[in-house]
Amino acid sequence: MPLHLEDFAPGQTFRSGPVTVEEAEVIAFARRYDPQPFHTDPEAAKEHPLFRGHAASGWHTAALTMRMVVEALGHIEGGAIGGGGELQWPRPTRPGDVLTLEIEILEVTPSRSRPDRGAVLARMRTLNQHGEEVQVFTPRMVVPRRPAG
Amino acid sequence: MPLHLEDFAPGQTFRSGPVTVEEAEVIAFARRYDPQPFHTDPEAAKEHPLFRGHAASGWHTAALTMRMVVEALGHIEGGAIGGGGELQWPRPTRPGDVLTLEIEILEVTPSRSRPDRGAVLARMRTLNQHGEEVQVFTPRMVVPRRPAG
Repeated sequence: MPLHLEDFAPGQTFRSGPVTVEEAEVIAFARRYDPQPFHTDPEAAKEHPLFRGHAASGWHTAALTMRMVVEALGHIEGGAIGGGGELQWPRPTRPGDVLTLEIEILEVTPSRSRPDRGAVLARMRTLNQHGEEVQVFTPRMVVPRRPAG
Repeated sequence: MPLHLEDFAPGQTFRSGPVTVEEAEVIAFARRYDPQPFHTDPEAAKEHPLFRGHAASGWHTAALTMRMVVEALGHIEGGAIGGGGELQWPRPTRPGDVLTLEIEILEVTPSRSRPDRGAVLARMRTLNQHGEEVQVFTPRMVVPRRPAG
């Protein structure tokens, strides 16, 4: 059953994962999209004053998180679609980390101008195997209302 | 010459790109990280009520943008590193689009607690070949101060 706006309420939670962060994928992603030595070279990363070890690109953490968002909310009617939101990376993701996703619904708002849809504001916390936040994303998703009748 | 905090000032601009959005890469990225039919299947995407055609994952737009950020600002001492920021996708990126990046420096703030570094707030606008915004990201970057002496 696809989910509609009427299926969401503040306080609901959704969980998904785990996803394991693979070193080879961290390097391949970084070479293509974020080619900096603390992402592409595990040896060079040891010397980096902030990271002090090999770290995944934040955008890789975001991409792996989206995979878990689709697992949790891909059955929204029309798909899991957001126009953006506040994105934070409190600490780096490391190769070998095992990530899970916790989603909390914060607000559900029918559109005033478009009676067929609404917005769902959610807090999406990506956690590592120690329960530490590696990403917090707070997107506003576009969700269709259930058709009448 | 690596860039330090002292090299930044509000109003400065940096440009980079272009990057062409390749259909095969849009599909491969989406299959791995955002497996929804409007990203993975050009035919199915035609029927989607919001996208009305094949659209790249917003996270793919973000990843391609990061490649241009490294081109523009990778020579910051220690690298181009941000802890996050406000992320918006005003319209979808399409296969065949040619993206460029425009960065404007908004604020430069020495750290009160850490005399060796500061924060640079930047607005990073990713534009398609029509000059339309496909992503606006406003990150706060961590930038080292120039060592004395």
